[in-house]
Amino acid sequence: MRPYQAIEWLDEVGTDASRPSSAVRMIDQRQIPHDIAYIDYTQASGVADAIRMMVIRGAPAIGLAAAYGLAVSAVYGPDDPSALREHLTHEAMVLRASRPTAVNLFWAIERMLRRIADPALNTAAVIRKAVVAEAKAIDAENLKMDLAIARNAFPLIPSVANIYHHCNTGPLATGGYGTALGVIRYAHEQGKRVHVFVDETRPRLQGARLTAWELQQMGIPFTVVPDSASGHIMRTRKIDLCVVGCDRIAANGDVANKIGTYNLALAARAHGVPFYSAGPSSTVDLATLTGEDIPIEERPAEEVTHIGNISLTPDGTSVANPAFDITPADYITAIITEKGVAYPPYTQSLRSTA
Amino acid sequence: MRPYQAIEWLDEVGTDASRPSSAVRMIDQRQIPHDIAYIDYTQASGVADAIRMMVIRGAPAIGLAAAYGLAVSAVYGPDDPSALREHLTHEAMVLRASRPTAVNLFWAIERMLRRIADPALNTAAVIRKAVVAEAKAIDAENLKMDLAIARNAFPLIPSVANIYHHCNTGPLATGGYGTALGVIRYAHEQGKRVHVFVDETRPRLQGARLTAWELQQMGIPFTVVPDSASGHIMRTRKIDLCVVGCDRIAANGDVANKIGTYNLALAARAHGVPFYSAGPSSTVDLATLTGEDIPIEERPAEEVTHIGNISLTPDGTSVANPAFDITPADYITAIITEKGVAYPPYTQSLRSTA
Repeated sequence: MRPYQAIEWLDEVGTDASRPSSAVRMIDQRQIPHDIAYIDYTQASGVADAIRMMVIRGAPAIGLAAAYGLAVSAVYGPDDPSALREHLTHEAMVLRASRPTAVNLFWAIERMLRRIADPALNTAAVIRKAVVAEAKAIDAENLKMDLAIARNAFPLIPSVANIYHHCNTGPLATGGYGTALGVIRYAHEQGKRVHVFVDETRPRLQGARLTAWELQQMGIPFTVVPDSASGHIMRTRKIDLCVVGCDRIAANGDVANKIGTYNLALAARAHGVPFYSAGPSSTVDLATLTGEDIPIEERPAEEVTHIGNISLTPDGTSVANPAFDITPADYITAIITEKGVAYPPYTQSLRSTA
Repeated sequence: MRPYQAIEWLDEVGTDASRPSSAVRMIDQRQIPHDIAYIDYTQASGVADAIRMMVIRGAPAIGLAAAYGLAVSAVYGPDDPSALREHLTHEAMVLRASRPTAVNLFWAIERMLRRIADPALNTAAVIRKAVVAEAKAIDAENLKMDLAIARNAFPLIPSVANIYHHCNTGPLATGGYGTALGVIRYAHEQGKRVHVFVDETRPRLQGARLTAWELQQMGIPFTVVPDSASGHIMRTRKIDLCVVGCDRIAANGDVANKIGTYNLALAARAHGVPFYSAGPSSTVDLATLTGEDIPIEERPAEEVTHIGNISLTPDGTSVANPAFDITPADYITAIITEKGVAYPPYTQSLRSTA
């Protein structure tokens, strides 16, 4: 089910036999496809850095990373229960500051803090155990939700389908089965003949690097395309549908997702191609009324001006590098969560699907 | 007027004093902005390679390169007039095969061949002189046409303007003053306050590398943006207009231009931003009825899979790398040539502007 692990909990690491020895292990997604390297974290601040530096990325995966970050902080935290709770509250703040857009991060942290606050947990050992169990529960639920999303989407996928995909939404992005890529993967595993057009997804090339690599692992045929070619591809080839993930969905169905999602949706609209967004219901943020209210992270200029050590622009070039965009609900054919498929008008349908 | 020369004719090079010594000198655009290096060509096959490898690119500039390629072939060709004409006809075929989409290439070659065919040219020396003069005439006309385009567009540019631009259309692309970038440059030089949003233009990054460099040379403020962010930028900032070049314009106003032009036009349409295409009237190909009839060059996969020596995708990745796309006439607010500004319906208006 999981050909590789974006993130996993290790119960038996470290050298100090006097303490419980645990770590959060992540595949370093910055190195894929060149190297498959793992990094072990034993502090929430390290996990926060991993999220910020995009060792791990993808809305569900960073939620899971934050949960495990709190779990590992609990394991190595103070032995006094109230000092431990204070420590974890502080670590939650550190994790919360890592990236601003995806709601799953805040959702996972809130869920962990609610568990930590349970007054029935009256010793540090009990708190630790509960916190680790809660993170593992989120992990298991991620996988289960991803599969439910894939099954809910299954009837929407033709038996022979050219599918357009943006960014990366596979197991690397969720820690589970994948969301939008899980939809594609499940259709493939169930015998549908899918071919994936992979937006390369500048500036960080999550499509060209990560999605291409994941599709290779899964044996699914694909073609990598520069982001700007989607209109041309849709004009000249038969594309059956687009499916993308989501970093936050507002109550009205506006979808915040990786920069370029909106441009892909514009091309899909111009060519009558259905456009689906798939993600866990925790991505739906009913407290956010429209996409206008979703903060868009601006990332460092170097992501645009450099690839590795190669400078792509003249020295002193100014850059805009928004990490996400908002695709208005009007461009979204349906939103697929583990609870079902929501159609417009989303203000109504998302209340039962989120 | 020309802060640097994309291409120029040299009358005094070489070491063999017994022959006329000439060359076509080109700035190697593949090295910009890192190195400003020049290459001298003395054979049409070398010029054809320069076009194919994109030492020089841009529809008007490759037309000019082909003209100078024939001129240099004439200089070093056989001394018998009919052998020289045969040689030049062969060299024209070599040049014609270099890139398929831009009509200026074929236009310039046809014009040169008509000059070569003039029966009044009765010695090799006279043919040589006429051919060199014809190429220089195209060069001078390019500059004049670019300035006329810029002046014709001037009333369309607000006195304070955020302008979106795709690919590269400056002096590097035309050998003259620039087409779309000339429009921007002229407005700037005449005191309008312009800020340019520069699509980076994957996969070859002509925007990030060349347009950014040219705007720096011209002292015009700009922001480089990943291609996929144009929808987001237009949603969140006031963009006054888009202006792009053109590689071929069909009789109905469909515009073939660098891949990504169509996606930018889709974003412009969604946000009510005027979308202009600027180029010399030689780009209008009345013999091509619609964009459907324009062949789209597919370029090597390596342009997408690699930057320098860095591989961006897993080994064995398949890629689509169309060099151009077609923006339907319906998305084009106006087409600006040296002869004037053509508005829809283009089937009528282009007959007088082309």
